[in-house]
Amino acid sequence: MENFNFYSPTEFVFGKDRAAEAGHFVKKYGGSRVLIHYGGGSAVKSGLIGTVKKSLDDAGVKYCELGGVKPNPRDTLVYKGIDLCKAEGVDFILAVGGGSVIDSAKAIAIGVPYDGDFWDMYSGKPVERALPVATVLTIAAAGSEGSGDSVITKEDGMLKRATGSDLLRPKFSIMDPALTQTLPAYQTACGATDIMAHVFERYFTNTTEVEITDRLCEAVLLTMIKETPRVIADPDNYEARANIMWAGTVAHNNIVGVGRQQDWNSHGLEHELSGLYDVAHGAGLAVIMPAWMEYVHKHNVMRFCQMATRVFGCQMNFEDPEATAIEGIRKFRSFLKSIGMPINFAELGAKEEDIPTLVEKFGIGDGKTGGFMQLDAHDVTEIYKIAAHATL
Amino acid sequence: MENFNFYSPTEFVFGKDRAAEAGHFVKKYGGSRVLIHYGGGSAVKSGLIGTVKKSLDDAGVKYCELGGVKPNPRDTLVYKGIDLCKAEGVDFILAVGGGSVIDSAKAIAIGVPYDGDFWDMYSGKPVERALPVATVLTIAAAGSEGSGDSVITKEDGMLKRATGSDLLRPKFSIMDPALTQTLPAYQTACGATDIMAHVFERYFTNTTEVEITDRLCEAVLLTMIKETPRVIADPDNYEARANIMWAGTVAHNNIVGVGRQQDWNSHGLEHELSGLYDVAHGAGLAVIMPAWMEYVHKHNVMRFCQMATRVFGCQMNFEDPEATAIEGIRKFRSFLKSIGMPINFAELGAKEEDIPTLVEKFGIGDGKTGGFMQLDAHDVTEIYKIAAHATL
Repeated sequence: MENFNFYSPTEFVFGKDRAAEAGHFVKKYGGSRVLIHYGGGSAVKSGLIGTVKKSLDDAGVKYCELGGVKPNPRDTLVYKGIDLCKAEGVDFILAVGGGSVIDSAKAIAIGVPYDGDFWDMYSGKPVERALPVATVLTIAAAGSEGSGDSVITKEDGMLKRATGSDLLRPKFSIMDPALTQTLPAYQTACGATDIMAHVFERYFTNTTEVEITDRLCEAVLLTMIKETPRVIADPDNYEARANIMWAGTVAHNNIVGVGRQQDWNSHGLEHELSGLYDVAHGAGLAVIMPAWMEYVHKHNVMRFCQMATRVFGCQMNFEDPEATAIEGIRKFRSFLKSIGMPINFAELGAKEEDIPTLVEKFGIGDGKTGGFMQLDAHDVTEIYKIAAHATL
Repeated sequence: MENFNFYSPTEFVFGKDRAAEAGHFVKKYGGSRVLIHYGGGSAVKSGLIGTVKKSLDDAGVKYCELGGVKPNPRDTLVYKGIDLCKAEGVDFILAVGGGSVIDSAKAIAIGVPYDGDFWDMYSGKPVERALPVATVLTIAAAGSEGSGDSVITKEDGMLKRATGSDLLRPKFSIMDPALTQTLPAYQTACGATDIMAHVFERYFTNTTEVEITDRLCEAVLLTMIKETPRVIADPDNYEARANIMWAGTVAHNNIVGVGRQQDWNSHGLEHELSGLYDVAHGAGLAVIMPAWMEYVHKHNVMRFCQMATRVFGCQMNFEDPEATAIEGIRKFRSFLKSIGMPINFAELGAKEEDIPTLVEKFGIGDGKTGGFMQLDAHDVTEIYKIAAHATL
């Protein structure tokens, strides 16, 4: 096991009808003038924004608001948010929505106390200050409600870049699974795929003897395999929604990833897909991740056997371990297909002829990247090709 | 799943040679005058206290010290610590040791800013203020390094009582698995038993459909079953020590217990044993917990079958589920015996004739207690009787 620091100070406020406590918690964590940041009109129409506002009113907290965050959130709205916060003297950002809204809120939180362009922090500069951020989560997927990460897309060139800092960990996150019951099946499945991908990025590692995080990873994956089909079949299943929502947080606050090298190439490869085609991140991952697994499995066949047997219930083939490894990957792809995810370029709406562009944008040049198996431009090209043609 | 709040703000600083960072972290969390609190001479002799002092010196942090904490920590030393802190103007308590030292430090932290007797907060009064506490952990067991709980024994009558508050959650906990390598096998096994018990207290619940916490519980248990025998066989196995140490934290910061009713009767029953005989808490749990399981298993046979199959690798007997449940409990007791734990009163040094005294001290009167199966005084007596005579 490698040395690590683990710090997840967010207060999670989980369960039915908790959004009405937003005002109480904003006040507890020192907010006096809040920006309510959200996405489309659904948060307004559902009455959620109204509930949050009433709660802030009751707590005597002032607020302004900025909606309009899109999936793969853009820098352009972030600049608008920063200007608004400066004009209104905002000291606390409350994101009401999913990962995109939260990531946009984190970018605004970085930008307000910073003299230069907030994009500097998405170009490698460390985050040194940020306004406090909190969330009212409406989609189980990104894990941003419990993480210090944020991903923003620069509209000029559709360049998707990330930053991370403990300063961006939300002060609190209100998580009411009932709020996710109105999500369409496709979006629910995209979220589930993202959650599983967050685990797999940590599961495939060259660090040995980290049984505790291996088992915690498997715990989240087994939960997702049980609960996701139940939610796809019955969107109103509160219990299944609740399990998935909490699994999404556990998958990405790094409790399942400490003490080990992590990979993250699948996320990198996917970011180019959703950057170029503006497809849902989870859908892109459903196409990329099994393809990545097929390409890298020889790097550590036994680790894929562990996944196959412990997570997907395969019988170990002791005479031919690789067959077990491949069977596990096949089961993963079948699972994704069964919950309605695309599994190849055609189903995603991506084009094979764009692969050189994707590789170019991936920006690896003559270098290599990845924590599990180091990939060069040739490897990346091959993985996109597998993803282009994948079948069950 | 039930509504819950989860808040675990402790910064965990995990790995080799991290104790030298104590000064840095005390300063980061606002300490300027520290009480170093520890147990016997081993922390001094090993050089650990010296390392911590040097680190505080280097950070320009002043300190005083109080050693002498015993297992099942006493109120008498807590009073001494409170007086010392008041005299020295201490604003931060650094516990260097295991659960007993940390629990004693938490009690001192409660007592310093409180006008009355700190025991009030161990008699039902809520904790409203406390000095900040941090830890350098030397034993994987109690989970106190990541919890808001503290258990203290009143020397007059050997009365063991607990308190809990988020204010008692350590600001940081330094966890170097190498520090646990010098622990005798018996103490290591006691710690492992305590860790597993913390999980089982949460695992046995009447709350249905909490797959995520079920699976997280099982993750910790499976890790303990793999790693504990390795450490008993080879005390210097750093990797196994590391897995156990982190598992101990995960077992008790409540990440494996949220969203569900919990039980905690085994801990209550054990507290009377270690209170009366001054035996190790883990050893008492090894005797009590399987006895408790045998007595309550009919309350939910399927839940015990889940434990038996998922945790102890039993084959499900579909014609006779109860046989599987009992087989799982038997495997648990065999496991405890195999790591050197006592499994009945004689091996523990307890006496059957004391059972009425134990039940009397348990203090249940005509009432009932417990989150999984409500127990009355008769039930408690029966469980102590099973524990008295247990065999493999």
